[in-house]
Amino acid sequence: MKAEDLQNLLHKEIPITKALAIEVLDLELERIIIKAPFQQNKNIHNTAFAGSIYTTATLAGWSLVTNFLESNNLKGSVVLAKGEIKYLKPITGDIIARTTLGSEQALVKFNKQLESKGRARLSLIIDVIEDEQIKAQLKGNFAVI
Amino acid sequence: MKAEDLQNLLHKEIPITKALAIEVLDLELERIIIKAPFQQNKNIHNTAFAGSIYTTATLAGWSLVTNFLESNNLKGSVVLAKGEIKYLKPITGDIIARTTLGSEQALVKFNKQLESKGRARLSLIIDVIEDEQIKAQLKGNFAVI
Repeated sequence: MKAEDLQNLLHKEIPITKALAIEVLDLELERIIIKAPFQQNKNIHNTAFAGSIYTTATLAGWSLVTNFLESNNLKGSVVLAKGEIKYLKPITGDIIARTTLGSEQALVKFNKQLESKGRARLSLIIDVIEDEQIKAQLKGNFAVI
Repeated sequence: MKAEDLQNLLHKEIPITKALAIEVLDLELERIIIKAPFQQNKNIHNTAFAGSIYTTATLAGWSLVTNFLESNNLKGSVVLAKGEIKYLKPITGDIIARTTLGSEQALVKFNKQLESKGRARLSLIIDVIEDEQIKAQLKGNFAVI
């Protein structure tokens, strides 16, 4: 999938992503960067809203796993089973979430599980960055069913 | 604060809550119920979107702590420090998040901390319910600073 196609898919199928003004900045097989602009996603303290930070991070993880399945002609729906987020420092500008597919070892295990059982889980660490600093970090556990 | 005033405050100060069509159904000193309608918050699987579920739960917790401070003439800004959510079952309709202030003991500790240090933390369990079942559960750690 191209970054543009993913962005269109999100805006069409998950209507709230349009309100968050989600932009897919980069999409490769093994990595993704997603942005939610500050103006639409600020809070009462004039920093980035915790719900928007979590949502942007979640979308990065969900999209990367979905794209991985599609690129490998694997079937299945991706859903988030569990999310753990730490807000380390306030974000005063755009929300930028980035993640990678993780270790080759984890992917091999994931592929094997998916082939043998038709379902599998994959955990991703998604960083939310500003000025090259990790301002929030989500551990997302994604289930393919 | 009245439920209506809280809803207006959220829509005014956290613009994305308007797009989620957040409604405050009930607000008492010790409990709150917040709703996000299905239509605005559905996902690609035609169930409630994980990001909207988390956000609605977060808003319930944040609002209850903020209202508690205001009602007791306590000063401080409420921010979310950490969130852990489990998605137990798909939600096929509106997102309804509810929580209570927790034990008297925890509140006494919270009040003492706030008085002596000017900052304190409070953890809340926020249930997201549908048909009287808990479909998702957030443990939110709120910091008053």
